[in-house]
Parts: sequence; C-alpha cells; structure tokens
Amino acid sequence: MSRPAHRRPEYHKINKDLFVLTYGALVAQLCKDYEKDEDVNKYLDTMGYGIGTRLIEDFLARSCVRRCHSYSEITDIIAQVAFKMYLGITPSVTCNNSSRNEFSLILDKNPLVEFVEELPAGRSSLCYCNLLCGIIRGALEMVHLAADVTFLQDRLKGDSVTEIGITFLKKLDERKYRRKK
Amino acid sequence: MSRPAHRRPEYHKINKDLFVLTYGALVAQLCKDYEKDEDVNKYLDTMGYGIGTRLIEDFLARSCVRRCHSYSEITDIIAQVAFKMYLGITPSVTCNNSSRNEFSLILDKNPLVEFVEELPAGRSSLCYCNLLCGIIRGALEMVHLAADVTFLQDRLKGDSVTEIGITFLKKLDERKYRRKK
Repeated sequence: MSRPAHRRPEYHKINKDLFVLTYGALVAQLCKDYEKDEDVNKYLDTMGYGIGTRLIEDFLARSCVRRCHSYSEITDIIAQVAFKMYLGITPSVTCNNSSRNEFSLILDKNPLVEFVEELPAGRSSLCYCNLLCGIIRGALEMVHLAADVTFLQDRLKGDSVTEIGITFLKKLDERKYRRKK
Repeated sequence: MSRPAHRRPEYHKINKDLFVLTYGALVAQLCKDYEKDEDVNKYLDTMGYGIGTRLIEDFLARSCVRRCHSYSEITDIIAQVAFKMYLGITPSVTCNNSSRNEFSLILDKNPLVEFVEELPAGRSSLCYCNLLCGIIRGALEMVHLAADVTFLQDRLKGDSVTEIGITFLKKLDERKYRRKK
C-alpha cells in the first residue's frame, strides 16, 4: 500500500486539542522510557529534528515566503508565519547580540501546555516542549542554516515567559540559502 | 506553575501536518518499546482512551451538539462533527445490524497516514491509527455510552478503505445519556 507522501494541494486546518493531548501522551511515554530528564529532552529534540526535516517542504510550499537576506528576517518568518501556521500563535522576536545571529522567540502563551498544569513529579529538568526546538533546528538545517535551538525560559518551570533561543552558527552566506521550489 | 486546563473560549485551528508527524513519532516510539504489534495496538488504544476522556468536554462545549436519541444519531455526530472538527474529514456511516447498535465509519482518506507509505517492516498486524479507536471509546464512555471500537479494515494493510467499527454495548437508555453543560 503506497500513497503519495507530499505535495498535497489542500491546506487543511484542524482543531489543535487532539494534537496537544497526543503530544502529552508522547511526552508521558518518553518519561516512562527514560529515567533522566536530559534523555527525554534529547529524545524530544531528536524526534523534533526528524519532524522538522519533513515539515519544511510543506511549509515552503504553503507559506510562499520570499527569500530571506538576514537571520533577523528568517527568525521573523519562523515567528510570524511558521508558528502561526502550525501552532496558531505568533511569538515576539528579540535579537540578543550585536552580531545579529542570536535571537529569542518569546511565547506569551504556549498551546502545547494548555492541558499541562505542572511538570510531572520528579521531572523538574524536563523541557516539556523540546520537540519544538528540534523541529526548528531540523527545518533550518534543510535550508542550509545550522543553528542551536534551546529553551532559555519556560513557564512550566516557573519563569514568567517561555523563551526559545535560536543561535545561528555560521556567517550568513546568501548563496547557500536555497529556498525550495 | 498552574494554568487553567479547560474552558478556554478560543476555537483555535492549526495546520494538521505537525500533528500527523508527531503522531508518527509516537507510533515509532511505541514500536521501539513493544515488540508485539498487539501490545502497540493495545497501548495506542489505552492512550487514546485517556485522550478521549479529556477531549469530550471541549468537544461538547464547542460543538453545541443537541441531545441524541439513537445510536445512529450519535454515530452521525462522531462522523460529521467530531471527525470534521479534529481531523478535517467526514467519514461515511453505515449501520451493520438490524438492532441498530453496530456501525461503521468509512474513511475514504485518513490524514493520520498521509506521511506513511506503508506499515513498518515486520509490523503487519499494527493498527497504526488505533489511537482513534481509543479516543472514540473514551469520549463515549464519558457520556455513559459503553462501546467496542476497532479497525475492521485498513488501507495500510491493503484493504480498499479504512473502516472503524463501533458496537454500542448497552440498550440505549435516554435517561443515562447526559450531555455535559
């Protein structure tokens, strides 16, 4: 049984609660599988990376984003187009250094934790939403943009906001940034 | 850190690809964890059950469905309102017996397998989408409707359609069917 995996013309939207609850089941399963929070975090990141490498193609096909010429523009598109499309939210963006390769996405609300009241007992180092970091990292790598992506703050850990840090690792070379057609 | 878990007034829709790929990661993880397909199927059903028991409250709050007076009406609402809301599809419904407690949902397309070309190697008995059966079972149980919910056919296994069978287990007692406010 084989079906075409990509290039579907439809643009389907669904209610996000099913996703949010299914994600919770995934995290719970990983917490069962791995004793250390660090291992769960790593695994979520790795899973997210795989998802990001597949999601990017659909994202580029559907978003019609223009070619970007700076890391700042790229981060704005992640926040304003990708987050909006996939999670229904638009994080605000700050640039954290003068060489303009370190940015933060500030999430005032985070749909992924809407059903989560607190981190599971004994899981104080869990980055519950670490899948997101992996997704961003994987998607960026597919357009030749190496980046470190990590949670810098997390409301689930008592911080006042949730903040994802993106550090682009190379000097931006426009020739290397290819937007898929 | 505590946030209200339910009763959000917003009705957010998101692009479903993130959900579909995350679900794939969940199934892959369970296949890693459990050697036997039957165990993966059972676990997906159990996870789905938990999700269904939580999802029903939001579903009732958002869908504004009227009180139902027959299993046929209930199945129609699952197909036309719930599947549409959560997966963006509307399965067709057939009634399979004269006592009108056995129904099938026929899915011409199944968004959950859009990125799946075939079942993983050595996993021929896997019910890839078994989470759905658990969700339906869990949600129905929360409105006092006991049911068996299983896949009767699956395109991923070479069948021409995907068919979910719902067998309601008790004679319908209207007084017991309570719609939450």
